[in-house]
Amino acid sequence: MFHHSSELAYTVRVDKPNPVFARLLQQAIGGPEGEIRVMMQYLFQGFGARGPKKYRDLLMSTATEELGHIELLATAVAMNLEGLPGEKAEDLVTNPLVAARMGGMEPRHFLSSAMTAMPSDANGVPFNAACIDVGGNLASNLMANAGAEAVGRSLAARLLEATDDPGMKDLLRYLIARDTMHQNQWLAALEELGPDALPAPNGVADDEDHNQWSYAFINHTDSPVDPSARWASGPSIDGKGEFSVVDPAPALGQPAELMPIPGSFAPGTEAARDEYEEGGVMSKVGDAVKSAVGSD
Amino acid sequence: MFHHSSELAYTVRVDKPNPVFARLLQQAIGGPEGEIRVMMQYLFQGFGARGPKKYRDLLMSTATEELGHIELLATAVAMNLEGLPGEKAEDLVTNPLVAARMGGMEPRHFLSSAMTAMPSDANGVPFNAACIDVGGNLASNLMANAGAEAVGRSLAARLLEATDDPGMKDLLRYLIARDTMHQNQWLAALEELGPDALPAPNGVADDEDHNQWSYAFINHTDSPVDPSARWASGPSIDGKGEFSVVDPAPALGQPAELMPIPGSFAPGTEAARDEYEEGGVMSKVGDAVKSAVGSD
Amino acid sequence: MFHHSSELAYTVRVDKPNPVFARLLQQAIGGPEGEIRVMMQYLFQGFGARGPKKYRDLLMSTATEELGHIELLATAVAMNLEGLPGEKAEDLVTNPLVAARMGGMEPRHFLSSAMTAMPSDANGVPFNAACIDVGGNLASNLMANAGAEAVGRSLAARLLEATDDPGMKDLLRYLIARDTMHQNQWLAALEELGPDALPAPNGVADDEDHNQWSYAFINHTDSPVDPSARWASGPSIDGKGEFSVVDPAPALGQPAELMPIPGSFAPGTEAARDEYEEGGVMSKVGDAVKSAVGSD
Amino acid sequence: MFHHSSELAYTVRVDKPNPVFARLLQQAIGGPEGEIRVMMQYLFQGFGARGPKKYRDLLMSTATEELGHIELLATAVAMNLEGLPGEKAEDLVTNPLVAARMGGMEPRHFLSSAMTAMPSDANGVPFNAACIDVGGNLASNLMANAGAEAVGRSLAARLLEATDDPGMKDLLRYLIARDTMHQNQWLAALEELGPDALPAPNGVADDEDHNQWSYAFINHTDSPVDPSARWASGPSIDGKGEFSVVDPAPALGQPAELMPIPGSFAPGTEAARDEYEEGGVMSKVGDAVKSAVGSD
Amino acid sequence: MFHHSSELAYTVRVDKPNPVFARLLQQAIGGPEGEIRVMMQYLFQGFGARGPKKYRDLLMSTATEELGHIELLATAVAMNLEGLPGEKAEDLVTNPLVAARMGGMEPRHFLSSAMTAMPSDANGVPFNAACIDVGGNLASNLMANAGAEAVGRSLAARLLEATDDPGMKDLLRYLIARDTMHQNQWLAALEELGPDALPAPNGVADDEDHNQWSYAFINHTDSPVDPSARWASGPSIDGKGEFSVVDPAPALGQPAELMPIPGSFAPGTEAARDEYEEGGVMSKVGDAVKSAVGSD
Amino acid sequence: MFHHSSELAYTVRVDKPNPVFARLLQQAIGGPEGEIRVMMQYLFQGFGARGPKKYRDLLMSTATEELGHIELLATAVAMNLEGLPGEKAEDLVTNPLVAARMGGMEPRHFLSSAMTAMPSDANGVPFNAACIDVGGNLASNLMANAGAEAVGRSLAARLLEATDDPGMKDLLRYLIARDTMHQNQWLAALEELGPDALPAPNGVADDEDHNQWSYAFINHTDSPVDPSARWASGPSIDGKGEFSVVDPAPALGQPAELMPIPGSFAPGTEAARDEYEEGGVMSKVGDAVKSAVGSD
Repeated sequence: MFHHSSELAYTVRVDKPNPVFARLLQQAIGGPEGEIRVMMQYLFQGFGARGPKKYRDLLMSTATEELGHIELLATAVAMNLEGLPGEKAEDLVTNPLVAARMGGMEPRHFLSSAMTAMPSDANGVPFNAACIDVGGNLASNLMANAGAEAVGRSLAARLLEATDDPGMKDLLRYLIARDTMHQNQWLAALEELGPDALPAPNGVADDEDHNQWSYAFINHTDSPVDPSARWASGPSIDGKGEFSVVDPAPALGQPAELMPIPGSFAPGTEAARDEYEEGGVMSKVGDAVKSAVGSD
Repeated sequence: MFHHSSELAYTVRVDKPNPVFARLLQQAIGGPEGEIRVMMQYLFQGFGARGPKKYRDLLMSTATEELGHIELLATAVAMNLEGLPGEKAEDLVTNPLVAARMGGMEPRHFLSSAMTAMPSDANGVPFNAACIDVGGNLASNLMANAGAEAVGRSLAARLLEATDDPGMKDLLRYLIARDTMHQNQWLAALEELGPDALPAPNGVADDEDHNQWSYAFINHTDSPVDPSARWASGPSIDGKGEFSVVDPAPALGQPAELMPIPGSFAPGTEAARDEYEEGGVMSKVGDAVKSAVGSD
Repeated sequence: MFHHSSELAYTVRVDKPNPVFARLLQQAIGGPEGEIRVMMQYLFQGFGARGPKKYRDLLMSTATEELGHIELLATAVAMNLEGLPGEKAEDLVTNPLVAARMGGMEPRHFLSSAMTAMPSDANGVPFNAACIDVGGNLASNLMANAGAEAVGRSLAARLLEATDDPGMKDLLRYLIARDTMHQNQWLAALEELGPDALPAPNGVADDEDHNQWSYAFINHTDSPVDPSARWASGPSIDGKGEFSVVDPAPALGQPAELMPIPGSFAPGTEAARDEYEEGGVMSKVGDAVKSAVGSD
Repeated sequence: MFHHSSELAYTVRVDKPNPVFARLLQQAIGGPEGEIRVMMQYLFQGFGARGPKKYRDLLMSTATEELGHIELLATAVAMNLEGLPGEKAEDLVTNPLVAARMGGMEPRHFLSSAMTAMPSDANGVPFNAACIDVGGNLASNLMANAGAEAVGRSLAARLLEATDDPGMKDLLRYLIARDTMHQNQWLAALEELGPDALPAPNGVADDEDHNQWSYAFINHTDSPVDPSARWASGPSIDGKGEFSVVDPAPALGQPAELMPIPGSFAPGTEAARDEYEEGGVMSKVGDAVKSAVGSD
Repeated sequence: MFHHSSELAYTVRVDKPNPVFARLLQQAIGGPEGEIRVMMQYLFQGFGARGPKKYRDLLMSTATEELGHIELLATAVAMNLEGLPGEKAEDLVTNPLVAARMGGMEPRHFLSSAMTAMPSDANGVPFNAACIDVGGNLASNLMANAGAEAVGRSLAARLLEATDDPGMKDLLRYLIARDTMHQNQWLAALEELGPDALPAPNGVADDEDHNQWSYAFINHTDSPVDPSARWASGPSIDGKGEFSVVDPAPALGQPAELMPIPGSFAPGTEAARDEYEEGGVMSKVGDAVKSAVGSD
Repeated sequence: MFHHSSELAYTVRVDKPNPVFARLLQQAIGGPEGEIRVMMQYLFQGFGARGPKKYRDLLMSTATEELGHIELLATAVAMNLEGLPGEKAEDLVTNPLVAARMGGMEPRHFLSSAMTAMPSDANGVPFNAACIDVGGNLASNLMANAGAEAVGRSLAARLLEATDDPGMKDLLRYLIARDTMHQNQWLAALEELGPDALPAPNGVADDEDHNQWSYAFINHTDSPVDPSARWASGPSIDGKGEFSVVDPAPALGQPAELMPIPGSFAPGTEAARDEYEEGGVMSKVGDAVKSAVGSD
């Protein structure tokens, strides 16, 4: 169960409202690098956590914090869309530079939400939960979460470069600091799982025959691999093998000759129709559907 | 530029075709944990790689390998959909167990592709590139890539559990071995960047005022944090701070009182229309759009 | 069955073509507040209407009218993209204000459709039928439809503010008038269903034990509820209860301790692999898939 | 800012785990009629609320409650996927009825989340925020919210029919009771706004010329309108007009003859290329893009 | 403007309702091969048609017919979901074959629409207008339309195989016949444009230097091209060149060495932060955004 | 299996970087008319090709070439985003024309990828594989492929108009030449299949009763059909019929009266609840779900 405080998690102050920056902030709300994604990712991982309670608590606490970050950013969007400074009103029609600003706005901030944040990215693409890695394995989840924080921190760093509003810089520095913590905490949890955690997920069956592929870099390019590259030789990161470089395996066989399916190939080359009608593979699928209704 | 060999990257053999398993394999093709995602992620990261050539080569080679894995899996899907074994033909209408199998099929394998793989997941949801982390920062990309391999390896491990077809088990063990290598190689590249790589991206401005938030776990739940948790105390993983636990900050201020927007609030409480019509914020936006066409 | 008249449902006149306004109009075609959405919503509700014919007729007639509105708006888009006024040709390269206008265009109006409307919103996001509430219950559908008209009318009102083209203002006032009618007609049909229609759907089983939750506002914030708020006390709108305010229930129990799933948790803490291999839950799922193919 | 309690908002008890029912419950989590949608809709409406604080509080409190409902349902999904009852283990391979059950499972519950809820609907389609009506006008939002609760309550009622598990029935009856309250509260808030609230949004300019279309049912079908229908005659619901029935207006004009665009029409009928190359409309658009880089 | 007749375009009769077949029919409504796609494609092409009126009429008439096909199929879906035959009621719980049928149902037919069609495909994926080729060039549109009819006719042919219900077979044969006509009519219109129509679009600038690539098959595989293949030699289909086979061009140059972007590469290898802070490319982009707000 | 050469398929040269043109180029990468679409379409058609090997080779070779085109375009995007020319740095803040250019940028080129291509279209909408026509019938696939090349060539022709950069013009002319070849090759393969290939797919059962609909243009508009139109009379394109023009068939029957479903209709008009509770259709569906878990 959740509760809402009317206090924000951090101060949001906008000294000079800027609708173009409001649009850029949307990426941090609804983009794949944004807060809705991590909030939902940690939330669903937390709902499904089945191990020691401390990991579930870690996931739920951070998910709840990220929800508060959405609130911070949505507040910042609304404030950047707020009352265009009175004395600038004329400029909208007379000053090309200011007019250009309107061209950089997200039009749905005007059309759909009347000057408020949307659950979308900087291009107005609605958030899509296809990006959520629920995963179902704690170590895999932690790696995916550290990665999500890293791309999120990259985004926040670029937003910081794109504003000189002191209030916005203060807020973004706070969010970057939190990304620092979150990136560290997921790696800390991974470390706590111990050296056997890698490769994630552990506990997957391996065997002699296939281990030869587990630490070999197969070079699919025409560039020779730099022999000093960390992934070309030496012990693997999981400590369970030795890196090597190999060529794509010669002659592992061609794809099986697939059986022509009546009706899926074109005319002049086969007596398609007869087979399609009686006894072909696809008519059997049809039979199965038909039979579902039962016979009388 | 790319080239195609008619040889597959690995042998694909299906001893006992199973259309339900064909559907499950689709998740490894077009799901967020699948091969289209990593192929496209490494490809676009490679296209944009601007540092030492060896990282670009690493990305392009692995992207190219993943493309071959799509081919392996698509071949496996087609072979699992292949000629239902002749002697079983009758069963489709008479054997409830076999009929149930058809209920577990992806119907578009029949309707849309005539017994061939689709660029979709196990539920027939088409691949969506929203999940691609292009990132633009090498260290962030490497962390995201390691995470993607970890969730992908989790998926492959579960597919391995869901089949006892020797050919399919052999293929999946090969793919799991490759996931092992890929997970290791991204971590190896990250290690090679050196200890300053974390937190990713590095080089982001920090300062005294905000550092206090960089290593503090803010507990948003009512469960006390286990003091022995790796993320509760001790040195941070990036070696640049000390973990601590704090409460959500008290009283950082309420959201600013947003200026009511004429027309966005409802009747009886304000004289909405007049302001909307002349000089309100939204009419200014309207003016900017109108002015775009120029004055006569 | 449908028929098309070459006459438009209303006059479309554009006095001063404006490609930025063409982009904004797209929101009314393909956005969630737009005409494709309501056309498709009423159409599918109509296809499924199983009660008195007059409701089906109401739905089909309005769906058909909305289709004509798409035509009006698509015509308006094409006309706004039409022949940039001859005398302005030079301005595209010399006048920054006019150049800025091009920055505000939907680029696919040029690239994909050659100066014609697209089935997309103002950001070029293609229409997605995820937003269609088919519902399957007449009273619920009517409420959803009234809501859809209300957000659609909000959009049209904002478009009206964003143009001073007399032709476009005339068209938008017509569309707003139609939204007025449609909002009223759905509420009229709801009224006709009588007082028992609420809460929709009616006829849902209730009982003593759960009725205590049916009219209680559970306050999940730290702000006290204004006791004079209409939803805090007094008779409920459906006339079947009395509003009250309560706190989130204390101690309704913690989530069940979920059984760890072998292989889903990470290393060092359990003997994952053995269980995964034999007899764990996930291997049972695997068994079911395997068995689908039947035994030999 | 938000906080999480380890206590659930309501008891979740599953007497007889059923993976098919787990799949159906997903619709109430990630479908357009589900809890993620209303949570996100109320949240973003709340972030943007600019009127009296009580409406913002109402939105934020209900959004926070809905978040807790996601937790309830996700817990219910996990428990329905939980340890298939021991004594039934054999049945998976031997009992066709039980095997059929597996065919009705969401495969990603196994493949992607290892027996946990996903942010998707009953078909595994990921949640898409395209369905969020942020709206930006309080009265419109309230109508859309009442509609969303009505379709949500329809869904919950059907889920109630689909289970005879006492724990699940208890939970669903609780959720239906909450939907009753929420449907009532949005209508109560609408009532509080007073009679001028309709049609929403209010304050939209109207005029003599267009009012004739505001209360007229235009019949686009070949069925005569039932004269006793509430929407055919009598006072309109908003009290501002009289309903009438009219035919689609005759002869309002054909679509303007659109100017052929060089290159957009096909060969033999025009000298396309020359115009395309020099001075046509599309080449002007091209010029604008080219000029953006400035001249040297 | 459109009108609706209460008469269907063709008789819809279902002799033996079958909910699994109802699900398969959804592919013909909301799948990329289905009627919503072609309806919307022809509609938007028609709205934008700028040449001789007869092409616009052709597009609008066919779009209107396709809309009626959606009605036919939606009616067929509802009738297949209709009253499970009374005498079969018991079977749902006692007959595994009948129970399996329920596993093959689209669950949202029950949960979301109460036994009615949805604007979705056979997997419940909502229709997405990303698939609409508006095109903007008549010849290109006609080719795309012929292709759309061909994949649509393939789907209808497979649906025909999947049922033995006489009513459904009759309806599908009608739809296949219409697809025959539509495929023919688009090709007829293309023929009418004359031999210069290909390659579409015509009127595109060509020149000596690039013509060498216009009729050469570049072989990117290790399989030699069959010299008798129609595309390997002889006159091209558009009659404007001669087919030949060539190898991928040797040594056309490597990708340009991209300038490293400060902050996008990782630590230890460059002095990232300083450049990021002052004067780097990304800071310039930042400056542009900042400057949009104008100086005071 | 695939291999990557470090050489590009064609020279990519950008004389004057232009971030607005970089955005437009994205349409050719990730839009429905772009290279990812055709690459994936040919790839999956190739994976599923079951006829003579030469068609599979044709598909795989072209898919592989298209992959190289993505590389060309992604390189071109990065180069257009490359180091804004040094001497122009000042202009970003001082020159409105240059500032306007930034407004035309894809913001995620800065925020998400740090000056690199994305797998998205010109509006930043991520590529969606819903557009892939896998088809499963060779002739249908070839028609769909020719259509895809035609809309792709239209796009490339418009991009050519939008730049005067000599390097970009050279690259686009190369891509247009390749589209010419590809459009021709798909039509050549179709020709090779012979005259029986149309209508695609061939081999579909037809019969006397339905043939009357196969070559008749049913006019759903109020415009008379031009009797000289190629599709109005004369032999059909497939040579198997004669075109004619007919009116929409009179009186083919109304939709069946659908049985009211208890609970799906609203109050006051029926005794909904009782039926819902016991024995109605929806309760039977519910029973089937419940029974899936087996009885004890």
